[in-house]
Amino acid sequence: MNQQIIILIMMLFAASPLFPGDLKSISQSADSIVKTALRDSTGYKLLESLCQIGPRLSGSEQSVKAALFSLDAMKKQGYDTAWLQPITVPKWVRGTKERAILKSGKGKKLKPLSVASLGGSIGTNGSISAGVIEINSFNEMKSKAGDIKDKIVFYNVKWDQGLVNTFNGYGRLAGYRVFGGIEAAKYGAKGFIVRSITTRNDNTPHTGVTYYNDTLPKIPGLAIGIIDADFLSNYIKKDPSAKVTLEMNCYSAGDVPSYNVIGEIKGKEFPYEILTVSGHLDSWDKGDGAHDDGAGCMQSLEIPYLLKKTGYQNKRTVRCVLFMNEENGYRGADGYANLIANDGKEHLLAIESDRGAYTPRGFTVEKDTALVGILREFLPVLRKAGIDWVETGGSGADIARLKTIKNLIGFVPDDQRYFDVHHSANDVFSEVNHRELELGSASMAILIMLIDKNDLIK
Amino acid sequence: MNQQIIILIMMLFAASPLFPGDLKSISQSADSIVKTALRDSTGYKLLESLCQIGPRLSGSEQSVKAALFSLDAMKKQGYDTAWLQPITVPKWVRGTKERAILKSGKGKKLKPLSVASLGGSIGTNGSISAGVIEINSFNEMKSKAGDIKDKIVFYNVKWDQGLVNTFNGYGRLAGYRVFGGIEAAKYGAKGFIVRSITTRNDNTPHTGVTYYNDTLPKIPGLAIGIIDADFLSNYIKKDPSAKVTLEMNCYSAGDVPSYNVIGEIKGKEFPYEILTVSGHLDSWDKGDGAHDDGAGCMQSLEIPYLLKKTGYQNKRTVRCVLFMNEENGYRGADGYANLIANDGKEHLLAIESDRGAYTPRGFTVEKDTALVGILREFLPVLRKAGIDWVETGGSGADIARLKTIKNLIGFVPDDQRYFDVHHSANDVFSEVNHRELELGSASMAILIMLIDKNDLIK
Repeated sequence: MNQQIIILIMMLFAASPLFPGDLKSISQSADSIVKTALRDSTGYKLLESLCQIGPRLSGSEQSVKAALFSLDAMKKQGYDTAWLQPITVPKWVRGTKERAILKSGKGKKLKPLSVASLGGSIGTNGSISAGVIEINSFNEMKSKAGDIKDKIVFYNVKWDQGLVNTFNGYGRLAGYRVFGGIEAAKYGAKGFIVRSITTRNDNTPHTGVTYYNDTLPKIPGLAIGIIDADFLSNYIKKDPSAKVTLEMNCYSAGDVPSYNVIGEIKGKEFPYEILTVSGHLDSWDKGDGAHDDGAGCMQSLEIPYLLKKTGYQNKRTVRCVLFMNEENGYRGADGYANLIANDGKEHLLAIESDRGAYTPRGFTVEKDTALVGILREFLPVLRKAGIDWVETGGSGADIARLKTIKNLIGFVPDDQRYFDVHHSANDVFSEVNHRELELGSASMAILIMLIDKNDLIK
Repeated sequence: MNQQIIILIMMLFAASPLFPGDLKSISQSADSIVKTALRDSTGYKLLESLCQIGPRLSGSEQSVKAALFSLDAMKKQGYDTAWLQPITVPKWVRGTKERAILKSGKGKKLKPLSVASLGGSIGTNGSISAGVIEINSFNEMKSKAGDIKDKIVFYNVKWDQGLVNTFNGYGRLAGYRVFGGIEAAKYGAKGFIVRSITTRNDNTPHTGVTYYNDTLPKIPGLAIGIIDADFLSNYIKKDPSAKVTLEMNCYSAGDVPSYNVIGEIKGKEFPYEILTVSGHLDSWDKGDGAHDDGAGCMQSLEIPYLLKKTGYQNKRTVRCVLFMNEENGYRGADGYANLIANDGKEHLLAIESDRGAYTPRGFTVEKDTALVGILREFLPVLRKAGIDWVETGGSGADIARLKTIKNLIGFVPDDQRYFDVHHSANDVFSEVNHRELELGSASMAILIMLIDKNDLIK
């Protein structure tokens, strides 16, 4: 049996696309990419400049400045070409007022709650006062259908700290924010408040998009910091006739012109085959959108620079796409999908970075399980930038809409701190660690290099 | 050949200690440990209380308070027994003065530099003024041997951001701090300044131990923040006759009594077989020693609680040891080594957590490569708390001195941010993320449970 085992082992090795010589050369290229990313810190410095522009909500003046800044940065990084793709985006304006004042049943003013209007919410047109009904699930709301009319619905559904994957934690709660207004309107609520979706124990409200349905009344919605959510919950148990007065002057200002930002370094052998790296340029307006998703954009922008600086001659065109309007409309992704549907090019791959600038852990591959196996063979190389695994899984909110791209990959950094800052005033540049961001850039650059150099996808 | 492949594959699976039924039960126990750690956040809350005591340099009043606090916490966590092991430790006192004033060659006072006396340094007995000679390696110093007499040696060796493993970065620089005084004294220097060993671009000095040699004069040493290190380097190039005046009143106060803290939950089947989890209780006095190593201590303290709360009946005794004096003497580790050398017990395993409270990545096994293979088979279970790999490697500074313990394992969390805060005023509780800390506790608790339940080591 011994000889047969040896033969089998030899066969297993022979099946690998990596021969020792190749592996050494690829390893050296990967080392060079990692060292350059960490030493130059180009993506991190770009992010610092981007964050200085301020928050970049779609349709805002800053979002256009951010697009122009990125276009300019692509040119400075040595891209062959870079351009703006015109699109239109919905413009929502937070306004100057977003207040929720708690008053006792006897009318005594107790405290202003720490709140933030939800993106897309209507304003209150003056103010609204109403009793508060706490709801802990949509099923519970159904069972209390008769008690909701003219109330403010308070979705106080708590984050489950017991879930290790924080995106699973987010997924269980996001529906209350996104659809809470529609569901509460069915039963005649006057407004709604959602407990902030966060892992951090503070009182900062975390905003995000909320949707309406044209067949139902539109009611205003706010996010509340979790310390005040607990306070409100406890208070209305003791004093059920307490009221909250909402005052918000946010509004939707229709569609306005905006841009995706696209740039390329042309492929030397197959210029019409496109490998894409991407992030979304818009951000919520409470912080600077440093992690969500300034980081993903500047990492993507840095990747062609890293390949060029380390002397890698890309066979295929490496393209960076910065999408506008991921947070509240996906107009950028949809516009880009239209652009590439019939452009005569082979869109082989897209990678998205939209999970924060934390240390790399893995890559998730959407649909194509064969690619999972292929990439796993290169884990010794990917590990140089911190990637420990490749799994089947979702890619990213923007690229998942690009149906003509054959292979979609999500970059997965460590996720323990992302929802500490996500969609809040805490999502600022000082929360980003330069080394963690740069390892993300390097891991995606290495992946592009591996795929391109070894012709791993067609 | 096909049938032979099938047989071979079956043999490979048969060699695994895991049968499907066991795996399911172990997986459920691991899930329970992780959920309990993340939801209860016991270790994190303990760390908050520990940090409120203040910095815990060996021999300080706070270090004794921290020992008593830990002893009490062990009892409150449901340990069967807990006690203090008396040891003596060297006491070093920072004093009230640690100044380095830069003056131009013409005697004009330019600026006070951001400095911190090195642990163990002598004071200046008044003040010392001298010219500064910049040194970038011990070899360079040898080549400039004639220029060093009566100077202040300035070791300005920079962190290499290009190294991915930050402990490698640290390892290349620590010698200048630890032995810089001895080496400079050989050539007649009057004092020495070391560039802070850090990944973060700020001006906070990072302290740490420095050693003397009884055959050479003792000269005072300070760490300097890296922004001022660059300033000093640039300035003395332009004005080589510039001088620095050092004033430090730190001193060594001899040996004083102190304690290791030890606690156990007794094994139900093999009480004389000991599985140990550990950290070091002392810390440098610039921050609160939150990451280094309050976190490792409180994670270790939490592990028996996690096993008990999730209903795990440990066959072997699970012991938590909190060492005193890792930072400047290893007296705790050496005292504990003496204690267990002939106590008639089987010290099977020790794990140390002393790399910060960051998200788990892996475990390193010292010496016993067979254990690496065994533990790798359990990666699907260890992954539940974020452990992606098991490798051969060093364990920890304290447990490496415990020669009678058969198996030594180092807990390896993500290392990108550790040297941002290490040994500096930035190592405070607010820099610790509760989820990252708790995943560390859970990963070590799962490892102990796996080893104990499956009799993996003897």
